[in-house]
Amino acid sequence: MALRVGIVGVTGYVGEELVRILCHHPEVSEITAASKDFAGTALDRVYPHLRGHAEIEIMGMEDLGELIGRSDVVFLALPHRVSAPVAQQVIEKGKKVIDLAADFRLPEQKVYEEWYQVEHGAPALLKEAVYGLPELFREEIKGKRLVANPGCYPTSALLALAPLLKKRLVDRSSVIIDSKSGVSGAGRSLKLGSLFAECNENMKAYGLGTHRHTPEITHYAGVLAGEAVDIIFTPHLMPVSRGIISTVYAKLSSNLDSCSLRQIYQDFYADEEFVHVALEGEMPETKWVVGTNRCFLGAVVNREMAVVVSVIDNLVKGAAGQAVQNMNLLFELPENTGLQQLGLYP
Amino acid sequence: MALRVGIVGVTGYVGEELVRILCHHPEVSEITAASKDFAGTALDRVYPHLRGHAEIEIMGMEDLGELIGRSDVVFLALPHRVSAPVAQQVIEKGKKVIDLAADFRLPEQKVYEEWYQVEHGAPALLKEAVYGLPELFREEIKGKRLVANPGCYPTSALLALAPLLKKRLVDRSSVIIDSKSGVSGAGRSLKLGSLFAECNENMKAYGLGTHRHTPEITHYAGVLAGEAVDIIFTPHLMPVSRGIISTVYAKLSSNLDSCSLRQIYQDFYADEEFVHVALEGEMPETKWVVGTNRCFLGAVVNREMAVVVSVIDNLVKGAAGQAVQNMNLLFELPENTGLQQLGLYP
Amino acid sequence: MALRVGIVGVTGYVGEELVRILCHHPEVSEITAASKDFAGTALDRVYPHLRGHAEIEIMGMEDLGELIGRSDVVFLALPHRVSAPVAQQVIEKGKKVIDLAADFRLPEQKVYEEWYQVEHGAPALLKEAVYGLPELFREEIKGKRLVANPGCYPTSALLALAPLLKKRLVDRSSVIIDSKSGVSGAGRSLKLGSLFAECNENMKAYGLGTHRHTPEITHYAGVLAGEAVDIIFTPHLMPVSRGIISTVYAKLSSNLDSCSLRQIYQDFYADEEFVHVALEGEMPETKWVVGTNRCFLGAVVNREMAVVVSVIDNLVKGAAGQAVQNMNLLFELPENTGLQQLGLYP
Amino acid sequence: MALRVGIVGVTGYVGEELVRILCHHPEVSEITAASKDFAGTALDRVYPHLRGHAEIEIMGMEDLGELIGRSDVVFLALPHRVSAPVAQQVIEKGKKVIDLAADFRLPEQKVYEEWYQVEHGAPALLKEAVYGLPELFREEIKGKRLVANPGCYPTSALLALAPLLKKRLVDRSSVIIDSKSGVSGAGRSLKLGSLFAECNENMKAYGLGTHRHTPEITHYAGVLAGEAVDIIFTPHLMPVSRGIISTVYAKLSSNLDSCSLRQIYQDFYADEEFVHVALEGEMPETKWVVGTNRCFLGAVVNREMAVVVSVIDNLVKGAAGQAVQNMNLLFELPENTGLQQLGLYP
Repeated sequence: MALRVGIVGVTGYVGEELVRILCHHPEVSEITAASKDFAGTALDRVYPHLRGHAEIEIMGMEDLGELIGRSDVVFLALPHRVSAPVAQQVIEKGKKVIDLAADFRLPEQKVYEEWYQVEHGAPALLKEAVYGLPELFREEIKGKRLVANPGCYPTSALLALAPLLKKRLVDRSSVIIDSKSGVSGAGRSLKLGSLFAECNENMKAYGLGTHRHTPEITHYAGVLAGEAVDIIFTPHLMPVSRGIISTVYAKLSSNLDSCSLRQIYQDFYADEEFVHVALEGEMPETKWVVGTNRCFLGAVVNREMAVVVSVIDNLVKGAAGQAVQNMNLLFELPENTGLQQLGLYP
Repeated sequence: MALRVGIVGVTGYVGEELVRILCHHPEVSEITAASKDFAGTALDRVYPHLRGHAEIEIMGMEDLGELIGRSDVVFLALPHRVSAPVAQQVIEKGKKVIDLAADFRLPEQKVYEEWYQVEHGAPALLKEAVYGLPELFREEIKGKRLVANPGCYPTSALLALAPLLKKRLVDRSSVIIDSKSGVSGAGRSLKLGSLFAECNENMKAYGLGTHRHTPEITHYAGVLAGEAVDIIFTPHLMPVSRGIISTVYAKLSSNLDSCSLRQIYQDFYADEEFVHVALEGEMPETKWVVGTNRCFLGAVVNREMAVVVSVIDNLVKGAAGQAVQNMNLLFELPENTGLQQLGLYP
Repeated sequence: MALRVGIVGVTGYVGEELVRILCHHPEVSEITAASKDFAGTALDRVYPHLRGHAEIEIMGMEDLGELIGRSDVVFLALPHRVSAPVAQQVIEKGKKVIDLAADFRLPEQKVYEEWYQVEHGAPALLKEAVYGLPELFREEIKGKRLVANPGCYPTSALLALAPLLKKRLVDRSSVIIDSKSGVSGAGRSLKLGSLFAECNENMKAYGLGTHRHTPEITHYAGVLAGEAVDIIFTPHLMPVSRGIISTVYAKLSSNLDSCSLRQIYQDFYADEEFVHVALEGEMPETKWVVGTNRCFLGAVVNREMAVVVSVIDNLVKGAAGQAVQNMNLLFELPENTGLQQLGLYP
Repeated sequence: MALRVGIVGVTGYVGEELVRILCHHPEVSEITAASKDFAGTALDRVYPHLRGHAEIEIMGMEDLGELIGRSDVVFLALPHRVSAPVAQQVIEKGKKVIDLAADFRLPEQKVYEEWYQVEHGAPALLKEAVYGLPELFREEIKGKRLVANPGCYPTSALLALAPLLKKRLVDRSSVIIDSKSGVSGAGRSLKLGSLFAECNENMKAYGLGTHRHTPEITHYAGVLAGEAVDIIFTPHLMPVSRGIISTVYAKLSSNLDSCSLRQIYQDFYADEEFVHVALEGEMPETKWVVGTNRCFLGAVVNREMAVVVSVIDNLVKGAAGQAVQNMNLLFELPENTGLQQLGLYP
């Protein structure tokens, strides 16, 4: 195959990560990219580590028509609200779109507008969007033209929760998700809270009860469970560049020990290349997955409570890697194509 | 007052931190210190940042008799099991002892021996030890001669839980404590997991269901509640030198909103100098307390669940600072004497 | 004494650091502070770690008249160019001023204007400014009303160079200063290069041959030597919050060994409380000085070259601490008043 | 080709890094590995991030005969002194060896024994060892059977110095190399100075005048220059996991400006895939190369002094990557085979 891909919003961390993966993807023949900043600049001037790997001239946002025309599939690495109209433009030109923003993740326009406090930019498209978490919704994704790529926290949380919810092993009335993320999750824009001197040697919780990934996790947890699930989600900011570790707590409704619980996870994900269940005696660490499209899960029972630890790289399985996995699905390529890179340790 | 203090185990991080605080304590006239390593060396050769502040020659463990003789109170910054017999020696010489190890934290010898997998070194003393968390057990501490200084995780968790438990606001059947600690909590001994290249850019959970601070938290939570509390405790290791952030989840048994809950915390700790409740719109960060004896708490209600965030410096309020606070109590000094240092930001 | 101090630019890292030191300074009775941002806010809302230590309402820049009126001495923690006219205003009201910006560090207006690419804001004041590096220019500082507080890099470099230059031990034709700084040196303003994800796990050189501290180091090195010195200065950015380590290389003009060189340094700084020469077998580390007003120096001879390592905290001895040291000098207080805080380790 | 490779010392960071690269090397068919620790364990139990990439059972050191028998080439990632006798064993069995320790880097047995303070383990082999820095000694490496893989600091320094020395552009009497390294350079063994709490938020110089890479840099600088070069080398330890930045200072003997100097570097390395010269306006950062086999160089003229900045990943171009590059040369494969991985940013 000779896929031509477009990336809109290429100079953010997610856009750059898409380039990192796609420039070595064996079925991608051409990458076109645009950004509201740096138009007219070579991408390797913004990110010199790409020199010799990706020779891309950044187009401006006014050249989106040309970008779409030259692409079979377009990735949107844009802020929410900005994304939807661009998605519509791509769809109208008959191309496929993978949106890494939040605009098509929540099926209800009203819920989106409440949590994001903006009007939706393309409500008519909501009904045909599919939630691109391949391990859980693979069949629904195939053949679609608009994929809503999941948020980083929801990816880590839903992969941890799915076996519990689909197998109805837990009380759905108070599922707790305590997540800790690296700073790249906040993107490359200039915010006081993203400064080195503010984050380094610091740990904090934020967005308690108000983080916008809450309705996303709640909705898809409900889909998995077949009925409503009550989610308490607390994100924390930690001084690492990449990585999310989510620790999930849910009350078991039946009597299980750690060994049986681990077996349930191993069976559930037995055929998945990107989801690994930690072996007995192991508990996952983010360093095991940074730079890869993998998720490692560790599950134990502690006083009738399932405690599940999930680690991903927020920019890969939590964003760009999963988006490429979705592209592979859309174009009927083996799902791991271009996604087998090993991470660095240490 | 002209207190003479002894420190046994002075070259670990907790021992050093005791020196940092005590060498500027206005009522301390003399510090004697011993360590199994570095005997005969000047302490400022091991820790050059102390030069000019604390001129201390390190004694060997064979000189404990002399150290005890020269002290009014002895701090033990020793490994568990090693601590108890030294405590006994101090008590026998009629001096007071503040033990920063775990040997006297659990009142039941059997529970201690189960969790720590060693025989207790001085079981006869257990009955007169007092748990040195001044904000919660102040009156019990006064006049005692053996203080068991609390663990770092229990300090952060119990300060967060106390208002909920003492006021019987929550269901005691599944209280969850998700804690994240800096690496100094593992001490200065050589362990693979404490290497920079292993911890940096990494996040992990550990000791799920098996961490030795679990029975300590469970026991004192029970004391506060007046009946048994079921604790799920998950510690995590984060790449910072100092700091613990604990996020505590407990199901509210009555209807409260965030504002009322915050007020309950403010009232509960209104007279405490070292415990601060974050104002509306704030959520505590570890950088607010690093280097200080303070705890900041933030409390919100999220879907009928109390979510309380607690931050301390694991080496100060979680160890050496609290030990000095206990010393002040034992010697009827104002509790904040020598403990008003401001932390650094950034 | 009951000194009333004003701080203009209180919400930056240097301004905050001035508050941290001055709020526990035993001769300071009142602190008034202003900032262009956050006017009308309580300072502890911007920096909650100050709560209970410094109850200060931030004034706006339009209230400078009032601030100056209420102060005996005013510290300016402002950007260069903005500082000079405020200094003039303070002087005109008959108060003393300690300027932490660059406006009065270079005696020649032309040199300032070339390097900073702005017009000088108060050239008439240049002639009465004194360079506030007390260990090297103590007598000149006393009795002045306008102190130019040195830059952080120049402080670390000049303390390392002074014995070599004053004693004419080295060839002045190519003195090399290779400095490595933490990120707080770039301040709290929003810059791409100060983001956590850009700095963390990264090391870089910057400003080769163009950094604005170059003429400052060159000028005062010349003053110390009594003739022109040729300085090559290369700053680097390192992923720490605080600290500068400068490694200085200069060709010895006479035959010295490491032991004699160390002795020269010890003699030179024998009476200085804040400058320490590392003992034999030691080489200074930034952690030894972070949070303190100290400089540690280590000096060795390597193939006829003096190699001198100098460490300071860029926000303390490199900014706020030194400014308070200058204030103590101006008001004839013991120079170490309020500056004896010990740093944290680890 | 179906190369069978052996790795001795596989559980250290360099050994692991060899596996990371070789397990995806298209011409490598089999990896056998041994270690003194962890014999009998699966490698992915020690390094779970390798799970699914490299299924290797760790052999003990007593099985070296078998390992050598099954290999076409053996990599030694062992401590110095331990390495040489193993190299001899490999050579005697007629296989090729790439030694990542220091044992064969210095051609003079006496110099080695002076600096390393041990007897050489296989002095007879010294004469046939070749120094494996391909960009500078490519032709000498081809066809050899014993490659001494360069040290990490020497790689970064010699690539920076080569154009200056080979083209005789600088005064050889005082070349200064100021290097800053990440902590993984100290390996995975347990040392106080490698603990997170000791390195984090700290910067220090070490080994001034005594670091063992000094004679290595000095010797090969001399080879490049055609006559003796006087090297002053100062390493520093910085809180990053990976990366070395070396800043090199040398007095120019002729009149050059920055633009001409950069051109000289670009011409010198024009045909090299792994050495890049930063463009005008750029200065290299370690993040540009971490995870890759690349070196980026930046060169400017500052007051008649050439100042050259060089960045590499100490574990890749400074160790395992360069070793694989040498293997490619020995087996007449394209030099970049298996070495084109892109690094992560951020």
